[in-house]
Amino acid sequence: MVIIYTLGYWKLVLDGVRSGLRRRPIITLLTDFGQKDAYVSSMKGVILGISPEAVVIDISHEVRRHDVRHGAFLLYQAAPYFPDGTIHVVVVDPGVGTARRRVIVEGRRCLFVGPDNGVLSLAVEEEGFFRIVEIKEKEFMLPNPSSTFEGRDVFAPVSAHLALGVEIDEFGPEISSLTSTSFSRPMIGEDSILGEVLHVDRFGNIVTNIRGSQFKAFQGVRGLFKVKIGGTAVVLRLSRTYGDVPTGTPIMVIGSSKFLEISVNRGSASELFKANVGSRIEITRFGNRD
Amino acid sequence: MVIIYTLGYWKLVLDGVRSGLRRRPIITLLTDFGQKDAYVSSMKGVILGISPEAVVIDISHEVRRHDVRHGAFLLYQAAPYFPDGTIHVVVVDPGVGTARRRVIVEGRRCLFVGPDNGVLSLAVEEEGFFRIVEIKEKEFMLPNPSSTFEGRDVFAPVSAHLALGVEIDEFGPEISSLTSTSFSRPMIGEDSILGEVLHVDRFGNIVTNIRGSQFKAFQGVRGLFKVKIGGTAVVLRLSRTYGDVPTGTPIMVIGSSKFLEISVNRGSASELFKANVGSRIEITRFGNRD
Amino acid sequence: MVIIYTLGYWKLVLDGVRSGLRRRPIITLLTDFGQKDAYVSSMKGVILGISPEAVVIDISHEVRRHDVRHGAFLLYQAAPYFPDGTIHVVVVDPGVGTARRRVIVEGRRCLFVGPDNGVLSLAVEEEGFFRIVEIKEKEFMLPNPSSTFEGRDVFAPVSAHLALGVEIDEFGPEISSLTSTSFSRPMIGEDSILGEVLHVDRFGNIVTNIRGSQFKAFQGVRGLFKVKIGGTAVVLRLSRTYGDVPTGTPIMVIGSSKFLEISVNRGSASELFKANVGSRIEITRFGNRD
Repeated sequence: MVIIYTLGYWKLVLDGVRSGLRRRPIITLLTDFGQKDAYVSSMKGVILGISPEAVVIDISHEVRRHDVRHGAFLLYQAAPYFPDGTIHVVVVDPGVGTARRRVIVEGRRCLFVGPDNGVLSLAVEEEGFFRIVEIKEKEFMLPNPSSTFEGRDVFAPVSAHLALGVEIDEFGPEISSLTSTSFSRPMIGEDSILGEVLHVDRFGNIVTNIRGSQFKAFQGVRGLFKVKIGGTAVVLRLSRTYGDVPTGTPIMVIGSSKFLEISVNRGSASELFKANVGSRIEITRFGNRD
Repeated sequence: MVIIYTLGYWKLVLDGVRSGLRRRPIITLLTDFGQKDAYVSSMKGVILGISPEAVVIDISHEVRRHDVRHGAFLLYQAAPYFPDGTIHVVVVDPGVGTARRRVIVEGRRCLFVGPDNGVLSLAVEEEGFFRIVEIKEKEFMLPNPSSTFEGRDVFAPVSAHLALGVEIDEFGPEISSLTSTSFSRPMIGEDSILGEVLHVDRFGNIVTNIRGSQFKAFQGVRGLFKVKIGGTAVVLRLSRTYGDVPTGTPIMVIGSSKFLEISVNRGSASELFKANVGSRIEITRFGNRD
Repeated sequence: MVIIYTLGYWKLVLDGVRSGLRRRPIITLLTDFGQKDAYVSSMKGVILGISPEAVVIDISHEVRRHDVRHGAFLLYQAAPYFPDGTIHVVVVDPGVGTARRRVIVEGRRCLFVGPDNGVLSLAVEEEGFFRIVEIKEKEFMLPNPSSTFEGRDVFAPVSAHLALGVEIDEFGPEISSLTSTSFSRPMIGEDSILGEVLHVDRFGNIVTNIRGSQFKAFQGVRGLFKVKIGGTAVVLRLSRTYGDVPTGTPIMVIGSSKFLEISVNRGSASELFKANVGSRIEITRFGNRD
């Protein structure tokens, strides 16, 4: 091999080194497509074809079909744990192919890409944002995009171009608002809190809409509380973790998403209380504070 | 650190840079192994041990057990969306360890690796191919391969060696034919089409074996059609996307795989029609063309 | 662009090249978190934020809830197929947040990270190990770790720091023992073996606790055997692979994990025998040896 010392040559070398030193862009995917079909993989193929350096991470593909609030909650849970610059792509999109807007949100740390149907809003409000752009420019989509699979034909190629460094104002006009989904807010009285079940996870843990900080302001972390969900009521104190109580016993903790959670040690609280998303929960001060 | 200026040293530097500039090879996996067991991860471990730069992407591992046609359809759907040079590995292989051949197909854009039982053929016929090689050379397999898990012991290491750049004729002799699976073809009459259900996806969308182009040639995109599947018949016109009709209403679209699909907006067409893979579908011109 | 020839500059170039040449660290994840929730993705976000070069591979997230033995078995199956230096993170941890120890095991080839509840021990014993360290140093955890999600707040950041090259003795004090889970051992008599079902996979294959080598020492690979599980008994000979017998027929093979397995060609042995993990299996020499 002959090495020719020219400035141009070394520039090439240096550019190569620089791109190697640059952090690889991260693109997350959150959809209701499931994992049986090949849909998610088609999105990944499109992304890697445009942005070969991208690292694609699944948040979940098991969002309940067309359940925008479910998707919004999972994004809210996961997004804070990804590094700055991550590109979050969310495709829970019952209105695919219709006139709803498709947007890129430039958050304070990350970028969010998806339909403007509320699925982005919980995470975006938590993070704060600078700008919202409506996706319009066809040069960043696949040619002849289908009307039924914009995840593959629009959102995947758009996110890959973002990963390449295309500026967000090249994708379309800036717009001023984002469709919002908000958590229901608990009603906090003097002796009781009336809240709602936000989420039930695989373990049957019940995530309520009562923030840990709200609960602590209400009653402090000590004392006994009557917790009633549906027709079932139990008396609990706030604990630190599941193993603080015997197997099969219900427990109340500030969960990993900073909301109050009702769980059962090595069991399922959602089964015990027959609780689902949207179920009401009532927490009342019980007896004397110790 | 002391830098020694020698030609050999810079050659090393340049080779390193070049390998950094080279696109990382993509290997996709499509199996019926499911995601509960550790089988798929063993394949990934083997691949990364041989080809550390490879990017491994799951197409699906939820192919119905031993269902070669199901696997063939998912590969057909996903493969066109992966970049040139992708190595597709398919292990839906009820005859594992028996005398069936194991092949590498050099397609026009990509490589395909798997058992020669028809699972590769829909994607290969769509893409076109140059050569087929039977996998024989033991040096590219794990030592002492098991007879019951060739995904890990044969197909994974073979794909990783392909990713390293080993030429396909080093794996074994060229052969002249590939076992074929073909889509059933619809019967297209003057006033009706008799087709079949190819696939039902997670949303209950029914993918028929009638290509969009065939349907358009038959009747144009306008007009009303009676669509009958099993004992259920509805009258539909061709729409663009799900949201074009009210919630719960059936709809007919050219789907994202270019086949005619029957769906229900925010509902399940497979439930409405009680349709499964193989169900017959009859589409008849209805009333006057508008 | 102006290129300034200084030694320091070239040092930067060379370091960049070197890091490009270095094999990217592999981190595997094995949990009982399922794939519906966003928990696994939060772990991945944390890992990539600390160690952007890491390649994260899922072993499985469908370990039965809190089933330490199930997790231990899957790790045992998969770990040997990953390259030297892989970091295996296992979070099947019913005692999360309690006083159980959290450990890093420096195995002969790989690193293992998880709770010290037995989930690591089958793989560690198979591989052999040099040292065990208890994870204590908070600087390698997320700030204010939750008590209910140490996968995200402790094990993920610890594994990412290991991937960066932090030495294991920086994480805490060396300890001398690891909590052990062991396979039940079969009782091997003169004419019969009494064993147990270790695992049932997606295909309904029954993995027994009888090692292939034990079975061969018992009776050689020839001859007929009566195999009894629960109330069902069949007469089998040792075969090589599923396709050696007709569809629907039971078969006995040395499986890909080197244990004796009972399967049904294109069917489910666990259904045929109504077998579950822990079911007893009795194998008796049958008739004359051929």
